[in-house]
Order: sequence, then structure tokens, then C-alpha cells
Amino acid sequence: MKYSLNEICERIGVRFEGDGTALIRGVNTVDDARCDEVTFAEESRYYEKVAQGEAAAIIVAEDFPDLPGRNLLRVANPRLAFMQIMEMFVVPPEVTGVHPDASVADGAVLAEMVSVGASAVVADQASIGAYTVIEAGAYIGAAVTVGERCHIGANAVLMRGVRLGNRVIIHAGATIGGEGFGFVWLGDHHHKVPQLGSVQIDDDVEIGCNSCVDRATMGLTRIRRGTKIDNQVHIAHNNDIGEDVIIAGQFGSSGSVTIGNQAVFGGKACIADHLSVGEKARVGGASVIIKDIEAGAVVFGMPAQPKRQTFQEMAALKRLPELVKTVKAQERALRQLQKRVAELTSKL
Amino acid sequence: MKYSLNEICERIGVRFEGDGTALIRGVNTVDDARCDEVTFAEESRYYEKVAQGEAAAIIVAEDFPDLPGRNLLRVANPRLAFMQIMEMFVVPPEVTGVHPDASVADGAVLAEMVSVGASAVVADQASIGAYTVIEAGAYIGAAVTVGERCHIGANAVLMRGVRLGNRVIIHAGATIGGEGFGFVWLGDHHHKVPQLGSVQIDDDVEIGCNSCVDRATMGLTRIRRGTKIDNQVHIAHNNDIGEDVIIAGQFGSSGSVTIGNQAVFGGKACIADHLSVGEKARVGGASVIIKDIEAGAVVFGMPAQPKRQTFQEMAALKRLPELVKTVKAQERALRQLQKRVAELTSKL
Amino acid sequence: MKYSLNEICERIGVRFEGDGTALIRGVNTVDDARCDEVTFAEESRYYEKVAQGEAAAIIVAEDFPDLPGRNLLRVANPRLAFMQIMEMFVVPPEVTGVHPDASVADGAVLAEMVSVGASAVVADQASIGAYTVIEAGAYIGAAVTVGERCHIGANAVLMRGVRLGNRVIIHAGATIGGEGFGFVWLGDHHHKVPQLGSVQIDDDVEIGCNSCVDRATMGLTRIRRGTKIDNQVHIAHNNDIGEDVIIAGQFGSSGSVTIGNQAVFGGKACIADHLSVGEKARVGGASVIIKDIEAGAVVFGMPAQPKRQTFQEMAALKRLPELVKTVKAQERALRQLQKRVAELTSKL
Repeated sequence: MKYSLNEICERIGVRFEGDGTALIRGVNTVDDARCDEVTFAEESRYYEKVAQGEAAAIIVAEDFPDLPGRNLLRVANPRLAFMQIMEMFVVPPEVTGVHPDASVADGAVLAEMVSVGASAVVADQASIGAYTVIEAGAYIGAAVTVGERCHIGANAVLMRGVRLGNRVIIHAGATIGGEGFGFVWLGDHHHKVPQLGSVQIDDDVEIGCNSCVDRATMGLTRIRRGTKIDNQVHIAHNNDIGEDVIIAGQFGSSGSVTIGNQAVFGGKACIADHLSVGEKARVGGASVIIKDIEAGAVVFGMPAQPKRQTFQEMAALKRLPELVKTVKAQERALRQLQKRVAELTSKL
Repeated sequence: MKYSLNEICERIGVRFEGDGTALIRGVNTVDDARCDEVTFAEESRYYEKVAQGEAAAIIVAEDFPDLPGRNLLRVANPRLAFMQIMEMFVVPPEVTGVHPDASVADGAVLAEMVSVGASAVVADQASIGAYTVIEAGAYIGAAVTVGERCHIGANAVLMRGVRLGNRVIIHAGATIGGEGFGFVWLGDHHHKVPQLGSVQIDDDVEIGCNSCVDRATMGLTRIRRGTKIDNQVHIAHNNDIGEDVIIAGQFGSSGSVTIGNQAVFGGKACIADHLSVGEKARVGGASVIIKDIEAGAVVFGMPAQPKRQTFQEMAALKRLPELVKTVKAQERALRQLQKRVAELTSKL
Repeated sequence: MKYSLNEICERIGVRFEGDGTALIRGVNTVDDARCDEVTFAEESRYYEKVAQGEAAAIIVAEDFPDLPGRNLLRVANPRLAFMQIMEMFVVPPEVTGVHPDASVADGAVLAEMVSVGASAVVADQASIGAYTVIEAGAYIGAAVTVGERCHIGANAVLMRGVRLGNRVIIHAGATIGGEGFGFVWLGDHHHKVPQLGSVQIDDDVEIGCNSCVDRATMGLTRIRRGTKIDNQVHIAHNNDIGEDVIIAGQFGSSGSVTIGNQAVFGGKACIADHLSVGEKARVGGASVIIKDIEAGAVVFGMPAQPKRQTFQEMAALKRLPELVKTVKAQERALRQLQKRVAELTSKL
């Protein structure tokens, strides 16, 4: 992939004065950009690096200092402009049709322009929307519905009856539609509670590598529009995850959890069953949620509580060993005083 | 799948008075049950919901209030009866034989009625028991033994020599028989300790999606009869997990851990190497076990200790920032008193 | 596999006096070794077990007490000698060539003696070094480079452009090269930050089952020579993991983390973004790193801090509920004293 500098400038709405025919082959950090790459420098403290670098052009803010001899592209929002250039270099999943080594059941329905990789399997009654790409080794179970322009990663698994909206990305190795974890003890063995529900994943959701979303016991485990989930996350049965939620790696939920829109979870956080987290709540990494979290709350810790409180407790805890000693010393001082006061009293 | 209401009643031993010919197509929650579904209401506080719902029939306890016009099915244990009905709607894994796109080695031995999905691989010397279903993309390594009526999920991996009993369920993406994590530092590099042992998983065990069970360094990593393991759990080399143990999602063990029968682990708990957890111990979610846990103990926290103690400490910790201030104020008060008493003493 | 006792002795440089023709078929623990197996006893406290066992030979330290009738093999370092014998029993991955059910793109380049298992897929422009073994169901994406004598486990995934050195082991189900988790909120949706970088894994690295290594946003996520990573570990985008690092199971990192050479991480530890851990630092299991860790530091806890301090705090915390009571009692005692001193003062 390559573009002329003029094409790059056009994309981000910058008028370029010099020779715009140079070919740009990629983007890179301000430290590593080579002479055929574009970079960006968000703040003027990168001035020296920009001056010494080789980058073909540098996206900067409008108030970045002048730098003769370097191609500065001045924009209102350098980060956003740079992202637009990055997007020009994304390699889209290739639409290559059904690979001869794929296995597509006769009863599966594939819309136009669907790709299915080698060793991938599409089972009976599955329905795949237009322009969806199913990578090598992925498994699309019976009666699964996948919308348009979805991307199912290599060796990902969508089990029987799972439903995906449009533009959903399921990364490699993720398993969607496993059975909820439910058993009842019948005196001599754990008896399996049938898991008859399914999973519905709405438009524009992204689910990371090796993550798991379990099907509901009855009804649906639901992940709503625009939610982004990182790698190795576990979403348990009957969860209802709102819209535009962000869930970082290794998060884990228990059954019947409800998450409000635009909530944000740091990595490795977890939540006990039947709890809810309100809209726009922010949960710090590694937090352990053992009671409901209100909308907009900013929480952290084990147990999760207002972040400010956890940090106060952590600070106080650091002083606790010293405090134990102080209280002991006070105990001695008190005893002495008591004795002394008793003596004084008797003398009066 | 559909059954007449009469068939449903017969299954749970209820004599139905009205017209039992209505067709039931599923089960659902009391909130969502439609006119062709059965639901259950465990307590009388669901009376209003039952009254307003459309469910074809409602399983209730024997003392549930009367509700003319609704089909109440009175039983001693509504939850159990409902589960029995749920089981009628389970879709069993299909016995479809060996898919033409499966790859079964000539030296593999398949009993009668074994199914192997597309792109699944059964290696040399593997032995698969009757009625076992191997889903698409699963890998059964060389000399693996799988018992009867097992279910191996899509893209699951059973590595060389692993042994499974009967009715074992390995969910999608799980990997059984990876190498234990052992190295010795030889001055300039970590040298791999050979992992020569294997894994034995006994009857009626269930292992969740994307979970891992490592093979022993020597001997066996063992998971005993009836134990149920959730998604993304890591069982390390040389563990001996007892019978009827429950292990929720994202639990992780270190090497040479021993777990007693019927112990229960909440999600994301973990345990250091060479430790043991006694029978029927209950370990709360996200607990970090750094010393042995006695049989029957109920523990929680980091580090795991009696749950009651952890909660007491958490409560006390909340008051710690205030306590620090109190002790400081006491220090001042003590100083003043000491000064005052000294003055009094000098006056006498 | 079997060797004569003479061959075993020769391998570890021990001169054996007795009849060395007995056939040894494996190694085992001192508890379980059978008459055709070799075991080891590191300390003399195993004397009784050795005396009562059946092992064909026992590797012991030079000062181990005599035991007539048992074949003691005396060496300077019993553990190392035993490991050398274990290595004689390792089953190497078989070099079987390309399986007829594998799918190798015409544009892929395979060196001599490469094995590709059934249902494995090697995409266009991928390059595989000599003696590398790709197990069943693994996916090698477009333009991936794999060095010599690597071992790619069953159903593992190497995504587009990922680069592996020589003798790299990627265990079953691991996914290398997933997209970094980066989004910017554009007022009404999370917009994906393109992930244009790649992953480079250097010589002699090992990555466990179902682990994930994400590609860099730009540039490389790097795992350097000799580093060993356990199961279910998540390495985020733009991490730079040093040489000979040890990372136990379920560790998780955030973006742009730097780890020094020979650092060691216990299981389930995690680290926030943009932090660094110095060389030879030792991080205890389940630690939560929220600030930089110095070279050589030994840390533990949530938050991670010097291990000694965390244990002091844990000990103090145990006494906190009692401390709260003590301070309350002191408060009462102080009030009484103040009152009493005031009375005394007024009497004077």
C-alpha cells in the first residue's frame, strides 16, 4: 500500500505547499518513522525529535513551532487526523469467496460476497450476511445467524443458534454460545441445568481473542450495539451488556449480570452474579465487584468501592504497622497517667 | 421440539384436569413466557406476574394461591420439576457419523455410533468410545483415549495420550494435555523440564470453553469423577482435583495442587503451588490462596482466610482513615494531659 | 522408548557396577516408580521410600546413605542428572511432512522437513523454516514468518505478518497477532484505532496454551529471546518483554508495557498500561502493578509493593478489628482522665 503525500493531505483536509508526489508507505511513531512514513507530534515537546527525524511528513497542532525543511501538516486535531491516515493503511479482510478446503453445509445460506477460509466449517441452516469474512478454521454452528460485513477470526466458534448483527468482529479463538455454568446438587452428584437459551450480539460489537460468551439458561445473553470487548474476557449466561461498553482483557462476569451503556471496565475486573453496574460507571482494573455499582460511579479495589476511598485506605494501610505501635505506646502512656492521677487524687 | 401439555404433566407426575392437548414449544422465565411455553413461579410473590402472564402452564409449589383461568401445575419441588421439563427441550448432540471433511487416522479406533465433525482430526492410535460426539475442528491427538458418550466441543484439543472417562464434556476451545510450566535456570538460559506425564479426566467431568489442563511432569494430572469446571480455567501440572468439585470461571491453579471432594471455588480464585484445599471447602470468588485450606472452611479474600475475618477486616479498613485521625488527636490530648498532670504534680 | 541401565548411566556420567542390561522404560516419582523406571531422591529424608520402592535405579546425591540391594546412582546434582534422563524419554514432534488434509497456499514457502498437520492452514506468502512442526488445525496467516525447529500447537493461530525466530514453541490454542485494544470516543460511538503493527517473537521463546499476544498499534509487540510464557496469558499491544523472562499462567498486561530481562511473574499478576518492570524483578502471584517496579525488586500485593511491606500490612490488618476496639476504649479512658484532671485542677 502506498499513497502520494498529496493524497494523504487531501484525506485530512490539509493544503500542502511543497512537492506532494513523494510516496508514503506507512505510518509510524515519531521515534521510528522513516523517510517514506508519516508520523504525528501532538505536543511541541516533540520538537527536537521531529527536527532530527526522517519522516516524510509530520501531523502537528496548529500552534506547533515552525521547522524549516520538515513537512509539517497543521491540523486542529492531530490525533484524529493521524488516525484517518492510519485507516488508509488498514488491510481489509480479503473477499476471496469460499475456499475449496472449507466445509459449508448444503443447508447453509450464504449471501453475496461471503468469504469462508480453509478448514472453516459452516453448519446446516446457518445464515451469513453479505461481505462477511469467516477466517480459516472458524466454526459457524447450526442455525447461527451472522449479519453483513462481519469478521469471524481464525478458529473462532459460534455455537448453535447464536445471532450476530452487522459489522460484528469476533476475533480468533473466541467461543460464543458455550453452555452457562449451572448445576444443582442432587445429594450425590451435580446435576446439569439445561442451557436452552442463546446469545445475541448486536451491531458493531467487537469481541477479543479467546474470549467466551455463554448462552443463557433461558432467553438471551445479550451484548448490545457498539460494545467493545478485549481478549480473554468471560461473559457469563444471561448477562445483559449495554451499548458502547468498554471491557478490557481478562474481565470476568458471573451469571445474570446487567451492565449499563457506556460503562468502562479495566482489565481483570470481575463481578459477582445478579449484580448491576450503572451507565457510564468506570471500574478500575482488577476490581472485584461484590455489590451494585451506581451509574457514573468511579470505583476501584477489592471490594470495588469509590476509587478515592480505596486509595485513602491503601494510604492508611501503609501507616497501619506504625499505627499499631503508636496505639500500644499510647496504652502505656494512658496507664501511667491513670496511675499518676490516682496518686494525685489520694494526696489531695 | 414440541410436546402436548399432557406429556409435560406426565413427565413431572402431575395430574392435569383441563384440556391437555395444547402444544408446548419451550420453557421461559415468568417474565417472558409466551402462550406456548411453560414457566415456573417458586414463590407466591410472583402471583401478579403469573396472573398477568401468557404462559401455557406454570409450575408452582403446593401452597401457591389459587388463580382461576391459569394452568397451575402444583408440585413438591417446582425448581426440580421445571428442570425436568427443561431437559425435554435439550437438543442432543447429533450422531451423524464421520463427516467426509473430517480427518481420521487409519490407526484410530472408533466404536459404534461415533460422530466426528468437519475439519476435526483424530490421530493415530486414538480410541473413541461409543456415542461420543467430536465437534468440528476438534483435535484428538495420538494415543488419546475417549470413553463413551463424551462430547468434545468445536476446536477443542486433546493432546497426545490424554485419557477421558465416560460422559465427559470438553467444551469448545479447551486444551487438555498442554505441557506443565517448568524450567530450571542454567546460568544463561531457562532450560525446559521435560513434561512426560499425562492427564486423566474421569467420568462425568465437564470442562468449560477455552479452559486448559496441563499434563503432569511425571505421572498424572487428575480430575476426578463428577467435577464441573467453567470457562477459561487453568489447571496446572500434577494437580489432583477431587470428585464433585465445582470450579467457576477464570480460576487458576499452580503446580502440584490437591483439591478435596466437593470443594467449591468462585470465579477468578487462584492457588499457589503445592497447596491443598480440603473437602467441601468453599472458596469465594477472586480469593488468593497462599496457604492450605482446611476441609469445610469458608474462605475469601487476598489472602484467602475465613470469610468472616476478611469481611471484618474490610469493615475495619473502611474506618482506618478516620482511625488514623483519631489516634493523632489522642496523641495531642495525651501530651496535654501529661503536661497538665506534671503541672499539678509540681504544685503539690 | 526404552534404554538399558548402562545407557542411562552413560548419559549422566555415572559408572555402574552391577548388571546394566536391565531395560528402563521411563522415569517416575519416588512414590510411584516401578521396576522398569528410574527415579531420584534429592534428600536423605527419602531414605525409607527409596528402601521400600521398586525403582530400577535411584539418582541420589553423593552423601546419600548406603542402601544395599538398591541401585543408587550417585551424582553431584541429582535434579539435573534426573532431568537429563527425562530428556531421553521426550517424544519429539514427528516430522511427517504435509498431511494430505492440510491446506497450504501455493504462495507459501516451506523449507525442508516441515510438517503440517491435518486441517492446518498455511496462507499465502507465509514462510516456514526447516524442521518446524505445525500441528493439526493451526493457522499460519498471510506473510507470517516462522523460523527453524519451531513447534506450533494444534489450533494455534498466527495472524498476518507475525514473525517468529527459531525454536519457538507456540502451544495449542494460542493466538498471536490479534488487534491491540484501542478506541477513541467520537461523541456517539467508540471508533476503532487501526492496529497496523505486528508481533515479533525471538528465538527460544515459549508461549502457553490459549495465551494471546496482540499486535502493536504501530511498530512491534516484542517478546525477546528465551522468554517463557505459561497458559492463558495476555500480552497487550506494544509491549516489549525482555529476554529470559518467566511469566506464569493468567498474567495480563496492558498496552505499552516494558519488562526487563529475567524478570519473573507469578500467576494471575497484572500490570497497568505504559508501566515498566526492571530486570530481575520478582512479582508475586496475583499482584496488581499500578506503578513502575525497579530492577531487582521483590514485590507482591494489590497494589504491588515490596513483598515484606505487604506481609507487614496483612499482619497488621489482621489486628485492625481489635485495634479499632482498643482506640475506642482509649478514647473513653482519655475523656475520664481529662474530666478527673479538670476536677483536680479546680480543687487546687
